[in-house]
Amino acid sequence: MTAPAADEAFLHRLADLAADAVLPQFRGAGRVDSKGASGFDPVTEADRAAEAAMRRLIAERFPDHGIVGEELGAEREGADHVWVLDPIDGTRSFISGVPLWGTLIGLLHEGKPVLGMMAQPFTGERFFGDGRAARYTGPDGTRLMRTRPCPDIGQAALFTTSPYMFATDERPAYQRVEAAVRMARYGCDAYAYCMLAMGLVDLVVEAGLHPYDVVALIPIIEGAGGRISTWTGDPAAGGGRILAAGDPALHEKAMGLLRL
Amino acid sequence: MTAPAADEAFLHRLADLAADAVLPQFRGAGRVDSKGASGFDPVTEADRAAEAAMRRLIAERFPDHGIVGEELGAEREGADHVWVLDPIDGTRSFISGVPLWGTLIGLLHEGKPVLGMMAQPFTGERFFGDGRAARYTGPDGTRLMRTRPCPDIGQAALFTTSPYMFATDERPAYQRVEAAVRMARYGCDAYAYCMLAMGLVDLVVEAGLHPYDVVALIPIIEGAGGRISTWTGDPAAGGGRILAAGDPALHEKAMGLLRL
Repeated sequence: MTAPAADEAFLHRLADLAADAVLPQFRGAGRVDSKGASGFDPVTEADRAAEAAMRRLIAERFPDHGIVGEELGAEREGADHVWVLDPIDGTRSFISGVPLWGTLIGLLHEGKPVLGMMAQPFTGERFFGDGRAARYTGPDGTRLMRTRPCPDIGQAALFTTSPYMFATDERPAYQRVEAAVRMARYGCDAYAYCMLAMGLVDLVVEAGLHPYDVVALIPIIEGAGGRISTWTGDPAAGGGRILAAGDPALHEKAMGLLRL
Repeated sequence: MTAPAADEAFLHRLADLAADAVLPQFRGAGRVDSKGASGFDPVTEADRAAEAAMRRLIAERFPDHGIVGEELGAEREGADHVWVLDPIDGTRSFISGVPLWGTLIGLLHEGKPVLGMMAQPFTGERFFGDGRAARYTGPDGTRLMRTRPCPDIGQAALFTTSPYMFATDERPAYQRVEAAVRMARYGCDAYAYCMLAMGLVDLVVEAGLHPYDVVALIPIIEGAGGRISTWTGDPAAGGGRILAAGDPALHEKAMGLLRL
């Protein structure tokens, strides 16, 4: 007998559970905490409730799998299959009422991201990938996502959460990319990577990411034909300095500009 | 016999027309132009078609009214009533697939903004104000909008489209505000002003705005209890350097920091 495998339908069930916990608090009166003493990092009760609900369903269906979550820590991190969860990526968008936050659900197999979903319950959008294909489900139905060609960096549209997210030694590298592109935009968190998978944006450059910020996005971007890695070309699943490009040739060029 | 008056229902009709022209092109294959020789300013056919459709309905219903539009210029600018239209505010969001752009519809009476709507057809949201009240209509129904109190600038959430939108002499003033607040976010165009009206954001600081970028937002923000003006406290309807605050006391404090 074969063990049951996780599939797109299971990720949709997890996203449904997260939405049930989170959406009623969006633009609502959810309690906003400050995580840790340093800086401002808001977390809501909804965030924790969503992660707990997803963890319960995973434990029930796949009791041997590991889970790493933004809110509730890690268990069985050495398992063959490990889920990587961020119930509200983009908490600053969330608490500002801006519907660009999302629930990130990723699955690693032997350390390699194999399934990923980004779900935005207010707009009713879901972005799914398995590394070979990527699918968008929205108010207007379901369709395949493909990145667009953009071999010329001078024609590229670039997203980053903030030009101030970079450390002192990283900033000149980021600025070289921003100076080379046609258009730079800020403030989109995981949503920017999904627009890249859709073929509407060409580059995303960020730094200081955690694995739970990025694992779910890798099978989406790769499934849509794009490339995502660290700035030095290493696997993106560990987080850190991340570069995503819709066109593999553009990824190569941007990596050249990002050399520290 | 009294002349018919423009009301919220009429603004919804205009927003419907704009949505019919614009929404099919969102994330679609609309032709993207570059306006003028200097810099990058994308415009789509949809933008022009939406403005033309709104102008036709205004001319039919209110033939004496003036119209100023982003795309198709001005007519009867000296009329008692003048409509101020921007079919796609936030064209960079639009062409990047990010649903934070909006159709802005404002009405001036003797130069004073009296009605305003921001419509986001992808999310199905409309923000309306008449200077005395402000109403939100979204997927979850209609409700009044009120700004939130925030007398302490150290607790404020600030939005601006980009920290690089400011001219050399404006940047230090903007930076004084950014340094004083709890949280700064970028990239939201008119959507940021609507989140301020909803009581989810406290400050918006921008520069270089045209009247069609801001007229529609004034009756929404004032109707929700907020204050919007130039950085020196003059009426915002002329555009330029704009400061919006949910709390009038915060508006006063931010204006102090924005003195050039």
